[in-house]
Amino acid sequence: MQPTYTIGDYLLDRLVDCGIDRLFGVPGDYNLQFLDHVIAHQDLGWVGCANELNAAYAADGYARIKGAGALLTTYGVGELSALNGVAGSYAEHIPVLHIVGAPSTGAQQRGELLHHTLGDGDFTHFSRMSEQITCTQATLTAGNACHEIDRVLSDMLTHHRPGYLMLPADVAKARAVPPARALVIKGPAADENQLAGFREHAAKLLRSSRRVSLLADFLAQRYGLQNTLQQWVKSAPITHATMLMGKGLFDEQGSGFAGTYSGIASAPQTREAMESADAIICVGTRFTDTITAGFTHHLPTEKTIEIQPFAARVGDHWFSRIPMDQALAALIDVSGKLSAEWSAPDIIAPDASGAPQGNLTQKSFWSTVEKQLRPGDIILADQGTSAFGIASLKLPSQATLLVQPLWGSIGFTLPAAYGAQTAAADRRVVLIIGDGAAQLTIQEMSSMLRDKQKLLILLLNNEGYTVERAIHGPEQRYNDIALWDWSRFPDAFAPDTPSRCWRVTQTGELAEAMADSINSDKLTMVEVMLPKMDIPDFLRAVTQALENRNNRG
Amino acid sequence: MQPTYTIGDYLLDRLVDCGIDRLFGVPGDYNLQFLDHVIAHQDLGWVGCANELNAAYAADGYARIKGAGALLTTYGVGELSALNGVAGSYAEHIPVLHIVGAPSTGAQQRGELLHHTLGDGDFTHFSRMSEQITCTQATLTAGNACHEIDRVLSDMLTHHRPGYLMLPADVAKARAVPPARALVIKGPAADENQLAGFREHAAKLLRSSRRVSLLADFLAQRYGLQNTLQQWVKSAPITHATMLMGKGLFDEQGSGFAGTYSGIASAPQTREAMESADAIICVGTRFTDTITAGFTHHLPTEKTIEIQPFAARVGDHWFSRIPMDQALAALIDVSGKLSAEWSAPDIIAPDASGAPQGNLTQKSFWSTVEKQLRPGDIILADQGTSAFGIASLKLPSQATLLVQPLWGSIGFTLPAAYGAQTAAADRRVVLIIGDGAAQLTIQEMSSMLRDKQKLLILLLNNEGYTVERAIHGPEQRYNDIALWDWSRFPDAFAPDTPSRCWRVTQTGELAEAMADSINSDKLTMVEVMLPKMDIPDFLRAVTQALENRNNRG
Repeated sequence: MQPTYTIGDYLLDRLVDCGIDRLFGVPGDYNLQFLDHVIAHQDLGWVGCANELNAAYAADGYARIKGAGALLTTYGVGELSALNGVAGSYAEHIPVLHIVGAPSTGAQQRGELLHHTLGDGDFTHFSRMSEQITCTQATLTAGNACHEIDRVLSDMLTHHRPGYLMLPADVAKARAVPPARALVIKGPAADENQLAGFREHAAKLLRSSRRVSLLADFLAQRYGLQNTLQQWVKSAPITHATMLMGKGLFDEQGSGFAGTYSGIASAPQTREAMESADAIICVGTRFTDTITAGFTHHLPTEKTIEIQPFAARVGDHWFSRIPMDQALAALIDVSGKLSAEWSAPDIIAPDASGAPQGNLTQKSFWSTVEKQLRPGDIILADQGTSAFGIASLKLPSQATLLVQPLWGSIGFTLPAAYGAQTAAADRRVVLIIGDGAAQLTIQEMSSMLRDKQKLLILLLNNEGYTVERAIHGPEQRYNDIALWDWSRFPDAFAPDTPSRCWRVTQTGELAEAMADSINSDKLTMVEVMLPKMDIPDFLRAVTQALENRNNRG
Repeated sequence: MQPTYTIGDYLLDRLVDCGIDRLFGVPGDYNLQFLDHVIAHQDLGWVGCANELNAAYAADGYARIKGAGALLTTYGVGELSALNGVAGSYAEHIPVLHIVGAPSTGAQQRGELLHHTLGDGDFTHFSRMSEQITCTQATLTAGNACHEIDRVLSDMLTHHRPGYLMLPADVAKARAVPPARALVIKGPAADENQLAGFREHAAKLLRSSRRVSLLADFLAQRYGLQNTLQQWVKSAPITHATMLMGKGLFDEQGSGFAGTYSGIASAPQTREAMESADAIICVGTRFTDTITAGFTHHLPTEKTIEIQPFAARVGDHWFSRIPMDQALAALIDVSGKLSAEWSAPDIIAPDASGAPQGNLTQKSFWSTVEKQLRPGDIILADQGTSAFGIASLKLPSQATLLVQPLWGSIGFTLPAAYGAQTAAADRRVVLIIGDGAAQLTIQEMSSMLRDKQKLLILLLNNEGYTVERAIHGPEQRYNDIALWDWSRFPDAFAPDTPSRCWRVTQTGELAEAMADSINSDKLTMVEVMLPKMDIPDFLRAVTQALENRNNRG
């Protein structure tokens, strides 16, 4: 018997249209029948995670590599566990579709006292919660499902933010007709008049400039402008930098790359290069507290050209309804002839200070890591000492860095690394995470091992929440954690899967372990012993600024 | 220098007034300074957990023993991770105060682009999400804090549901004056007219009855009626039972106890005893899908007297604005003389069927457990085969059972057991949880060991989500999990803390391990090997009913 083509199948086909070939999640009794169709699907695979928060993080990590991702949970208990992960995707502009398997339409209409509900017969509580952290939502019915799925996916991919679909069990298995055409997402058209105004004002500012700097950040990556920007800075004398959120966007080994800009916490040459240009072009930037060391960036309005997803600015003039790619194309176009008149100062982007030798400290750790990273690596640095440490490194070419400095949920990167490796099986994934953070999400290491992934995990053992110690209460008990024997976990999670564990106190050992992992056929976990109170310089500057701000009220 | 008495101190003093002597949570940079005051407090201790969802579960488990609990998270990332736990407390009527350390008032008013926000300057997203799953909320300011803290705690304890407090960092440390008097919570007064009506109608029904049955459930426990109900059934011939949610409310070794009522899935004598009485008294019941095997309870309206938290019913007459304790007192009072005319059939409550010998199966496992449980044990059974299995046991006297059948979040009981043991250091806590469930929250085992707790953990190894297999897809890959080596975890989490691990396949081994744990000075983990497809009979009945309902739409 030919199985019926269902609304669930339609949804899965649409995910494939969006370039999504894995669905992350946890089974539950309101999504089990839909899962049969996931398992049966030709072009999309099921990735079961240990819990829903981890699944949300994994889907986010996958989406950061593939451009979009999808997450399946069950009603109530499952979806609420995932909310922190979905909110992180929202804050950081990662399109992840959150599909929630829900009680059948009839049971909802009758207001039944079902398990996984609040017991009040109201089935809208949780979708209302998700409205706060998704840019588009739908409750599917047999009648609206196909076009609502298309609408939600279109909104999600246009705004690069999560969407929410409630999929009642009866709707998932209702009959549907396969899509007639593939779903092609087109953003809104430009307002030609506004675009012309932007071009004209930008040309005027650039014409009077000799030194032009370009600060591009995460929204440029999210909206797909990375290649265009990389080409541009190769062909024109533009000193360029990112902030931490967008780090990895440029080839950091290329000429004209100035480093990671972070206001007063920047390296002096980075700061000077960016701030003192005659014209400063900002593409896809958001100046948040931590990445600017407490809003200490200094980029005067009158000197800046700013390009955001759907609007652009020159000086204090805003031009609306211009898609980001078209604004950038216009800017590159008007720069074409003008750039012959520009000059870029010679600049050597800062790299990790400190010699990679002797006992491991934050300084020698990061300089060793810098030397051992390889072109093409996918690096994840958790939002503690790891992310603040990596901000000061010069990355290899073609490396991809995943960080979460705006949402900043500790523990995120461990499942996200699992998702990233799932998305890019042939690249080395390097996860750098502290012990305090890893405790939140450790069980996803078992999924890595189950799937025979060959990640390199640098587990920074400094006996607790060192990033919090830097902010407040360095000696307080609440910043301590239970002290685990990290080396035992790979075998506990997967007794039959070989892995390699190291415990290193010397830079030489770390270098050896990292080099060894390059062609390893197994997962490598390196427990890196670091002094409890030692922190990267960048973190010191940022936390001082944050503490001051907290004290000010 | 005398430290300033702050709003944070006021809040902590009020928690102590409510009988709360532990605050569960995870530190974050918006709650660190408040944490200094927690650490310094004389009568309340800090309990750091491995992640926020686990902390919420632990606070819930603590509150189930102590009557109320409290949870501290940080803004955004922390609080959203906890939501599933808080929602469970809401659904199951557990008063847990969720305190969220937030950015300072000034930064919120200025709409700053802070970390742990969505980056849009709106600081109300997350408190609005929590409105769906808490019964009372406040955003504290230096001006409103003291009376708002009192209001939220009063609401929370009156309705036995969670409350939400947003505590900006500057407010926590603002000066306050200590409370003049302890906070004493009084529920609303009864409407005397309604109460008289209830009494009159109840007397009429009871007067014409010879056989009276009493079904009491979880809301009777939550509203503090357990002792009153226990006394009543000792002094009057009333056949009595609970459903699974309220199991443990009655002395199950006492005469007149009829078992666990669950509609058609009940033991025949339980069902007969409850349904065929002339008058059926329901106190604090909610007839949800799983615990009634798909709404198969049969308790005709005209024969029932129902007492709910703030209203009561006789036949089809509702009487409102009557506190539960007063309605029950009135009912006991009118029954006083009448009950001399009542007769209760001799009944032997069912116990675990099957002989406790030979290879372990679901049947022999539960009958062995039944024999090895001891008076005074606190037992937690996770919402899988564990909870459905324990439903059919006869518990020892003075045992307390914690289950979560309405919210039904798998993995809940592991951190909840940690919280329960924290609340009752001198009682044996027995945790029964499946391997699939334990994977969600395993890291809280490290907190148990850090705190030298001596729990008995029965880890049911059946290689996956057996409760889901029972519902759908018994052979499907999505119901499999990564196969861990459970015995390695205690040493991995706490290499310096001794523990005892068993792996048992025979009833005799299980009995020995359980007996051994009674006076153990260390944590005992027993990995119980069970057939992958074997399930308790009660679960078979329930899942069949659920599957049918899901299919019906």
